Amino acid sequence: MLAVRLEKGRVQLRNVARPRRPDGFAVIRLLYGGICNTDLELQRGYYGFSGIPGHEFVGEVVEAESREWIGQRVVGEINLACGKCEWCGRGLGRHCPNRTVLGIVKHPGAFREFLTLPQRNLRRVPGQISTEQAVFVEPLAAACEILEQVRIPANAAIAVLGDGKLGLLISQVLKAHEHEVHLYGHHKEKLAIADAAGIETRSRQKPPRSEYDFVVDATGSSAGLRQAVEMTRPRGTVIMKSTVHGLLRIDTAPLIVNEISLIGSRCGCFEPAIDLLRKGKVRVDNLISEIVLLSQAPLGFKLAKASRTLKVLLRNQ
Amino acid sequence: MLAVRLEKGRVQLRNVARPRRPDGFAVIRLLYGGICNTDLELQRGYYGFSGIPGHEFVGEVVEAESREWIGQRVVGEINLACGKCEWCGRGLGRHCPNRTVLGIVKHPGAFREFLTLPQRNLRRVPGQISTEQAVFVEPLAAACEILEQVRIPANAAIAVLGDGKLGLLISQVLKAHEHEVHLYGHHKEKLAIADAAGIETRSRQKPPRSEYDFVVDATGSSAGLRQAVEMTRPRGTVIMKSTVHGLLRIDTAPLIVNEISLIGSRCGCFEPAIDLLRKGKVRVDNLISEIVLLSQAPLGFKLAKASRTLKVLLRNQ
Repeated sequence: MLAVRLEKGRVQLRNVARPRRPDGFAVIRLLYGGICNTDLELQRGYYGFSGIPGHEFVGEVVEAESREWIGQRVVGEINLACGKCEWCGRGLGRHCPNRTVLGIVKHPGAFREFLTLPQRNLRRVPGQISTEQAVFVEPLAAACEILEQVRIPANAAIAVLGDGKLGLLISQVLKAHEHEVHLYGHHKEKLAIADAAGIETRSRQKPPRSEYDFVVDATGSSAGLRQAVEMTRPRGTVIMKSTVHGLLRIDTAPLIVNEISLIGSRCGCFEPAIDLLRKGKVRVDNLISEIVLLSQAPLGFKLAKASRTLKVLLRNQ
Repeated sequence: MLAVRLEKGRVQLRNVARPRRPDGFAVIRLLYGGICNTDLELQRGYYGFSGIPGHEFVGEVVEAESREWIGQRVVGEINLACGKCEWCGRGLGRHCPNRTVLGIVKHPGAFREFLTLPQRNLRRVPGQISTEQAVFVEPLAAACEILEQVRIPANAAIAVLGDGKLGLLISQVLKAHEHEVHLYGHHKEKLAIADAAGIETRSRQKPPRSEYDFVVDATGSSAGLRQAVEMTRPRGTVIMKSTVHGLLRIDTAPLIVNEISLIGSRCGCFEPAIDLLRKGKVRVDNLISEIVLLSQAPLGFKLAKASRTLKVLLRNQ
């Protein structure tokens, strides 16, 4: 079967054996995969990665431990947790120290014709959600994670910095929870998508200082995070939603003088994300810039890097 | 009268006019001032400071708006807040955007024979607290601030990194609140002080990874903050208690992957600090390394820089 492989910065196509199903696992035929910024970082050598990437996907179960899963359209939680440790016991398998992570840490990813995941990681895709939309469950869950970590008062205005895919999803999730969201970005055409979803948008050129109690940084840049800190009021919170590759350079003085909290935020539970999509509270169709075949993955990665591109999907035939 | 002045990195003695008392203010005769690491940073040019430093002090009121203050032994909150804004209304004058700060921002500091502060900033020193001990109210309040900002469960073990003055005060404050504290340091003689106060001490040579839900960084170094992040468990909290001069270089990946919170922490309310000293729950006498005359301030600053020194006090005659 066909698989995409990252090796020394290159996106390669390989013919590999179809995976066998370990106990407790399901084998899933890929329908769509989504290229995430993390995949581009993995290509650049983040985590010293080489292997099959891909953690955003929707697929169809072809083999499973339990028969009722066969033929189901599914998405899957990307952390393969041990199920036995303290973290797993607290429902926080995403922090299990023994975990592997689909397409990121020691478990081959979704950009191949057939992939494997523990059956307990699977979530059925409800009929109201299209197959293309379902690819967004994983990044949308990451956006929802903010509300799991930080208690935001109902009347608080929130600034989201960065008008990329993640910034657009986060803005919509916060708006769906009836927060007042101001999305700050550089790209007219991306801000227009937020405008269409009823989100107030602003230019990142001259952001206000000390204005918000909550600022989400989804820029993935040192400059963005510095800007986020500057926009935050004393005792306020900056949620760090995207990794900056390499070392971040930051002045601690404003953090300490203004007693600001910086909170790292990663993956989230799938249920709230599925719920938002099912109820149509978040629009994702206009975030799809390109759909290419899995066999065109090198082109897909190239397209995904362009600054105007939002989501690139890989389709399995 | 005599005043200490920092100018282009030098500690100078000056003869200046005794300050007049503005409405609502008190004039205080200095008894003791304490040299803080912030004063050393101000000397190095932090905040582009030049002027009279000093924000840790105990003094005697010689002029005041209300007669009952005259002759009182006092310490003073260092933030001169407007008293009218939203922050002041919330009891957070320490974040008042219109504030000046004693010896730091646009209000001449305490290292002079007579200083001024708004009468509302003053706190009486109870008889159980010696004059030398009272100098520690301000840094102790900064240590207490941690408990204002972060809710720490009763049974949580807390790591404090850095065995300097602030680390020793923080450890004692946390222990006084019945937390299990592990103080990590490099200096045998400083760790011995903590040992004597019943605090468990450990070497910073090989700190454990992902061990604590709460870590306080009181090292004032990039390396210390990185170490603090490494010692923190997923979803844990690092309290940043000391500024790193210049730009901090930090890898955001562990912060985001482990969803760690970094919380900047600065000044605190004086009342809990006075209370701890009054009840003898925190020992400060053995933190005094040297007492020199105000007229020997250049020597005092020099002594304060030595790595073995803890607190240097400046005595007004």
